[in-house]
Amino acid sequence: MMTDELSIGVDMGGTSLKVAVVRGTEIVERCEPVNTREYNTPQELIDSLGEQLRVLREQHPTVRAVGMGLPGFVNHAEGVADSLTNVPGWYDVPMRQILEKASGLPSSVENDANCMAYAEWKLGAARGMHDVVCLTLGTGVGAGVVANDQLLRGHLGAAGEIGQVSIDYRGRIGHYGNRGAVEDYIGNNELMREAQMFYAATAQGVPKEMETPVHLENAAKAGCPVAQALWDDAACKLATCLLNCHYILNPQAFVIGGGISKAGELLFVPLRRYLKAQIYPKHFAELQILPAKLGGDAGIIGAARLALDDLQQH
Amino acid sequence: MMTDELSIGVDMGGTSLKVAVVRGTEIVERCEPVNTREYNTPQELIDSLGEQLRVLREQHPTVRAVGMGLPGFVNHAEGVADSLTNVPGWYDVPMRQILEKASGLPSSVENDANCMAYAEWKLGAARGMHDVVCLTLGTGVGAGVVANDQLLRGHLGAAGEIGQVSIDYRGRIGHYGNRGAVEDYIGNNELMREAQMFYAATAQGVPKEMETPVHLENAAKAGCPVAQALWDDAACKLATCLLNCHYILNPQAFVIGGGISKAGELLFVPLRRYLKAQIYPKHFAELQILPAKLGGDAGIIGAARLALDDLQQH
Repeated sequence: MMTDELSIGVDMGGTSLKVAVVRGTEIVERCEPVNTREYNTPQELIDSLGEQLRVLREQHPTVRAVGMGLPGFVNHAEGVADSLTNVPGWYDVPMRQILEKASGLPSSVENDANCMAYAEWKLGAARGMHDVVCLTLGTGVGAGVVANDQLLRGHLGAAGEIGQVSIDYRGRIGHYGNRGAVEDYIGNNELMREAQMFYAATAQGVPKEMETPVHLENAAKAGCPVAQALWDDAACKLATCLLNCHYILNPQAFVIGGGISKAGELLFVPLRRYLKAQIYPKHFAELQILPAKLGGDAGIIGAARLALDDLQQH
Repeated sequence: MMTDELSIGVDMGGTSLKVAVVRGTEIVERCEPVNTREYNTPQELIDSLGEQLRVLREQHPTVRAVGMGLPGFVNHAEGVADSLTNVPGWYDVPMRQILEKASGLPSSVENDANCMAYAEWKLGAARGMHDVVCLTLGTGVGAGVVANDQLLRGHLGAAGEIGQVSIDYRGRIGHYGNRGAVEDYIGNNELMREAQMFYAATAQGVPKEMETPVHLENAAKAGCPVAQALWDDAACKLATCLLNCHYILNPQAFVIGGGISKAGELLFVPLRRYLKAQIYPKHFAELQILPAKLGGDAGIIGAARLALDDLQQH
């Protein structure tokens, strides 16, 4: 497999669309990110993306393929975006066909977190591993699973939706009617709602700056016991999700990236403690918990690499 | 792959050891089951098993391989039983080597629930499926996972331990220190403990016959609302475990066998209802929930078949 070839990676999030020409882990050329909220229909966004692809292809005629990650249920085999969790109006969009028509290049579509995981597995922290779960902690909890040296897709391409794993059968009702989904507890917004609720019940009340996980991180590092307890609680909940992955998949490693993972040892120390207490010692001893390596471009890098690897399959 | 070849299947449970000569799904000859509790050390049991293997091989000289399922963490690749959940004294037993020495035949070892799942996948209810989870509901909750047309084993062979999946991050502390393991709620003993607790709180008190799931089944079928509520509750808890498998693995089907699955529609009707309410409709529409086909011999049949299939790998 030649990995010095050029391909285009597209990373669509809930609010932005990022497009770049990629070689390995290198971003060769990056377009100005597009705010997806400025577009009223999928077609408008698709037209704008098509224009970007045409321009990039003219500038880089050796580009071989296009890969795109989308935030929701994506059927890679059929090339269809079934449903995007936080983007209204996207149902059963034949996105691979649209990309191929717009770019004139072989194209692949995949779930955005699967693209991130693919990048960490092929080129990042999980390189060379056969069984690994790569997570990204942000507004949601996304993940991709590698099992037996393959990206696990399942029957309809919907595998790896770790944010929907229940940690409480009587818990909150989430996006798909499902109770206790871990992302409904430790997603950025839910984490901060919890923080404000806890602070409100203290003598000091809610601090002036307590809107983002970074504020909560700073408070914990400054020694605030409320903030420290909240990080411990988030770690406990995340640990239960990872335990479930462990008992079902028995991976060699969890690779963790995304926003709240930046809290570092605040999250990782209690996370390791909760996992150690709940896993058979011989198995815990061989389980690695690693920070992601590729940062915010992992989604683009993974989509671009996946599209190249898919060329071998055709 | 010739499936009319003979092999020996060994199914070791918490209380009994069953050995048979198998052809496909047919039990050609079955030994008298051995009560494992009559043996004080692994070595005594191994000696007894070795004697059975020698006799069977003499009687069936065309037997090609031996496969054994064991109740606990088994590393198939290394051929080692790491730890057996309910059988004291079994740690790091090089069981494949022991079987090969005793029988003079190529041998394989695997987790018992994985053997059951292997049988249902190769020869039973899940035949021809690429992604499936096969469960057995009994004293514990065991399972095997097939993903991408392969039995999922994970890094140390410990994948598919679905009974340990947590349904409550603040739940009961289980065998490995882990909280909220589903088998600590719906395993036979826990289910009946719950039943007795609930009945004790009613005006009628605990019925005379309320020791086994069959008693609870009969009570529900006779119209007792306490028993019906208990089955609904068990289905809700099992549904959360299956939801977690669904979101991580996206299988085409759940195949369900073992003791309490015999309650049939009492369990399956509310189970489908809880799953339908918590899965994206397009995905639920394609998810099958099927009863197991091969019954109590699935473990022996799967172990025997696995040993034959492993011959191709060597």
